[in-house]
Amino acid sequence: MAAKPESLPELHPVSGVRLGTAAAAIRYRDRDDLVVIECGAGSSAAAVFTRNRFVAAPVQVARSHLATASPRALLINAGNANAGTGEAGFNDALSCCAALAEELGCAVTEILPFSTGVIGEPLPVQRVVSGLPACLDSLAEDNWAAAARAIMTTDTVPKASTRKVSVGNDTVTVTGIAKGAGMIHPDMATLLTFVATDAAVAPQALQAMLEAGVAMSLNRITIDGDTSTNDSCVLLASGAGVSVSSGTEAYDQLFAAVAEVLTDLARAVVRDGEGASKFIAVRVEGGASEADCLAVANTVALSPLVKTACFASDPNWGRILAAVGRAPVAELEVSRVAIWLDQVRVVQHGGLDPDYREAAGAGVMQQDEFTIRVDLGAGTSTAEVWTCDLSYDYVKINAEYRS
Amino acid sequence: MAAKPESLPELHPVSGVRLGTAAAAIRYRDRDDLVVIECGAGSSAAAVFTRNRFVAAPVQVARSHLATASPRALLINAGNANAGTGEAGFNDALSCCAALAEELGCAVTEILPFSTGVIGEPLPVQRVVSGLPACLDSLAEDNWAAAARAIMTTDTVPKASTRKVSVGNDTVTVTGIAKGAGMIHPDMATLLTFVATDAAVAPQALQAMLEAGVAMSLNRITIDGDTSTNDSCVLLASGAGVSVSSGTEAYDQLFAAVAEVLTDLARAVVRDGEGASKFIAVRVEGGASEADCLAVANTVALSPLVKTACFASDPNWGRILAAVGRAPVAELEVSRVAIWLDQVRVVQHGGLDPDYREAAGAGVMQQDEFTIRVDLGAGTSTAEVWTCDLSYDYVKINAEYRS
Repeated sequence: MAAKPESLPELHPVSGVRLGTAAAAIRYRDRDDLVVIECGAGSSAAAVFTRNRFVAAPVQVARSHLATASPRALLINAGNANAGTGEAGFNDALSCCAALAEELGCAVTEILPFSTGVIGEPLPVQRVVSGLPACLDSLAEDNWAAAARAIMTTDTVPKASTRKVSVGNDTVTVTGIAKGAGMIHPDMATLLTFVATDAAVAPQALQAMLEAGVAMSLNRITIDGDTSTNDSCVLLASGAGVSVSSGTEAYDQLFAAVAEVLTDLARAVVRDGEGASKFIAVRVEGGASEADCLAVANTVALSPLVKTACFASDPNWGRILAAVGRAPVAELEVSRVAIWLDQVRVVQHGGLDPDYREAAGAGVMQQDEFTIRVDLGAGTSTAEVWTCDLSYDYVKINAEYRS
Repeated sequence: MAAKPESLPELHPVSGVRLGTAAAAIRYRDRDDLVVIECGAGSSAAAVFTRNRFVAAPVQVARSHLATASPRALLINAGNANAGTGEAGFNDALSCCAALAEELGCAVTEILPFSTGVIGEPLPVQRVVSGLPACLDSLAEDNWAAAARAIMTTDTVPKASTRKVSVGNDTVTVTGIAKGAGMIHPDMATLLTFVATDAAVAPQALQAMLEAGVAMSLNRITIDGDTSTNDSCVLLASGAGVSVSSGTEAYDQLFAAVAEVLTDLARAVVRDGEGASKFIAVRVEGGASEADCLAVANTVALSPLVKTACFASDPNWGRILAAVGRAPVAELEVSRVAIWLDQVRVVQHGGLDPDYREAAGAGVMQQDEFTIRVDLGAGTSTAEVWTCDLSYDYVKINAEYRS
């Protein structure tokens, strides 16, 4: 199996951001499935959402609320996606927001709802509402790990990442959680991701930071090419700590930490892809443009034949070559293409490297983690995406789980 | 399992076209794996080839030969694709052609080579050449079934189709064979397809007929989105029978028969897709353009989540909805979308049909063959593609077979 950390690292609390969880029995028994993430009055928020045309009710509500107010709290449930539920689903999401707004004494537009789980079933609003008091009772800044567990669906391990970095003379904290694990493809990649920092960042600068970070992390992962109706990623800045402005060195330092946390989460989502036994980086170099590199990388990373070969540790380079050959790029000079498995060159000048020995390729592919590197010989652009293999368990999970 | 005819129908011989097979031990033991299809001097040929940028050596040779001469014979081997083999592979394909040309007393450019099987291994030229005498000894017009079996790789059943139709006062025969079974996606779809008629058709008219026929058959099927380096489809007209000219009623009658044979073969390839247990038609209606309909149909047909749900007979319409929602079309009005499983309407106005009962959807999906129908509510265009489910056996076949 790909290395999946069963236990989370110590997650630094983010001053000004409190998390509470509860077992609301939305779908699961004997586990938490409801989360409230509360932030103070001086906080700001940024978000990116799924680009799927079918947008789940909570995403519609969250988008609309975020456009009118700065959020006081996020309300997240696992087990039911409240997607494909029409007007009733929209009202259900609003009802849940209204109940939490009532408890917190804020406007309903200050609550952002998020849901993940089964599509097409009515959200059990009463169970969500009944779970709110327990969520609020457990609100605490050191509750990130419990929240990471409470948002899981087919995830097998909780996913979280945390950084403390120096920003000028101050220390800033960035902590985030995510859940996968199928329907993972740009753009957006992960289903739900929540990251917070204690810095003070204006909403517009925070949005730019989040979009740049997502572009190099969550939008670089693919498990099965399917995107979800519910994908959402939120970045909160509580404002409890140092103030960071756009265009400063402090901004770059904070951005680096946010990007690292998002990258950790993206890679953790791939490692825990449905049925994944291996983590595979597909790196394409020497392209005429980054778009060409990405097109080739995604075609290789999505090829079921390449992915089953990875599962079998079979260095079947013909399948990689065939995937490169059908990638949607305008120009491809076959005779310039080279392919490596980690440091082992398999293909050069578009054909088998005469020095290649299959045992070397098989050795690379038997690892839990390796890189398929393709050089297009057409320029200087590069792109990298991360994926996992296609195993029996992917079929098993998706044939048996109603997600 | 999807209905796969284990035994072939009676295949009408095509006057002027003889087929011979031999066991050349190229990869398999105890079975034929080499085929010669010979046609007379007055014959003409049309062909379409893979659009993959990595083109196998035999495809390069066949394209170049076809551009300079009218073929006397096709030479086909199973078990080795002679792909990714560089200059040596090109010369190997030429050597095989030269050996057959010598036997037949014709020019090397009058031979078209075709290979299917493992990528990246040298073609065992000597075994091919040694198998030629047995192929020639067995040349006969009633040898289509043996040829259909000899070109199989991971196919579990041979694939063939045949028609006798009236063209004016004459009768014309169309008979064809094909082999699949992975790497199936437009464009081109099937790996190898050979169809012949006894009509006399000029090369240009024959090429137009083949391209129109392939557009509505082989380019409408998808198994895993992967295209091969070797995909080839040839249409031979022996000229032994009636002459058919472009723009006549006779042409339309012959075209209809060729299109039917190609459609039979395309559907047979999907039914025998690697690991396939079900045949699924994805029909998209009400599109603003045929291109939009095709984009939606292919996105649904390629979605691993939709395909595993089909395998599980789980009417998980949320996955279909999510696939429609991420299809690359410029405009999609979600509230106009409706989805049916055969005659059962599941989604209307972009949400669950209130009259839908899950038992009805499950009943449809338990069948060996059914249709997912999507109405985009945006126009009058339609498109249909054919695919199969994604099963444990797909992973098993592709993790264990080096193809």
